[in-house]
Amino acid sequence: MNGMEKDHYFMGLAIEEAQKAAQKGEVPIGAIIIQGDRVIARAHNLRETTRNAVTHAELLAIQQACEALDNWRLEDTKLYVTLEPCPMCAGAILQSRIPHIVYGARDSKAGCVDSLYRLLNDERFNHQCEVTENVMADECGGLLTQFFRDLRARNKNKRKTQA
Amino acid sequence: MNGMEKDHYFMGLAIEEAQKAAQKGEVPIGAIIIQGDRVIARAHNLRETTRNAVTHAELLAIQQACEALDNWRLEDTKLYVTLEPCPMCAGAILQSRIPHIVYGARDSKAGCVDSLYRLLNDERFNHQCEVTENVMADECGGLLTQFFRDLRARNKNKRKTQA
Repeated sequence: MNGMEKDHYFMGLAIEEAQKAAQKGEVPIGAIIIQGDRVIARAHNLRETTRNAVTHAELLAIQQACEALDNWRLEDTKLYVTLEPCPMCAGAILQSRIPHIVYGARDSKAGCVDSLYRLLNDERFNHQCEVTENVMADECGGLLTQFFRDLRARNKNKRKTQA
Repeated sequence: MNGMEKDHYFMGLAIEEAQKAAQKGEVPIGAIIIQGDRVIARAHNLRETTRNAVTHAELLAIQQACEALDNWRLEDTKLYVTLEPCPMCAGAILQSRIPHIVYGARDSKAGCVDSLYRLLNDERFNHQCEVTENVMADECGGLLTQFFRDLRARNKNKRKTQA
């Protein structure tokens, strides 16, 4: 596989994770961490299921990867995530020293990699991270659009039933 | 207790947490979360012990509080932390909707509440958080200064023994 094929392959796995989230009624965001060509972590957003504010896909994947490598430094790894990370997850990427992330769709409301801030490229922090964006962005964003469309339709039906 | 006495009392508990971290060889940072006058979470930095990059005091305390309230929304709570939060922890404060934080010392290298960014007061995010800084800052900062002084001395002795 060349670089682009590899990125599509692993983003495909992250999308599978996002689909698992949707099936649980969770906002569909998925993440994968690889070292070389080996997947060392896969996770999806679980905020409603766990009732725990920090259980975003990236946070869960980073914790899995730390356990897999028995190290808080995730050297030589690459994180794939379907949506541009929020401030918490961008910060966790810096904390775990991930050298490279690949993401799908931009998040204009809370994205802190390109949209609202560029936290991963701020040289005042003790780590910077290479960023590849816009990998399968339509598929990644489409999952979110569909999820919120379905949610609105369900809520509308519920209101009708209750009326 | 008036507001300032209360802040000193709870920051004192956060300092006790930071001291527990130091005893384990961890960078001494501690955090407390209260609801009303009840402590619902207390935690200290455990990054080296757990080998998990996200186990900062604030992240651990937020997760404990979510469990205590069985909710990812930490409404009517207040977080006390000895050091200005990093981007990850500032982001976690936004994610968990904590309405008010109180911190001790500023962190000029990575602080994202006042020093490098003001993430908790950015109206583009869907939550903002009231901030009180400089509560027992000398005690909080002094713990860190002493910890790193001791660490340098131990490393120097180690090099001497090995030479």
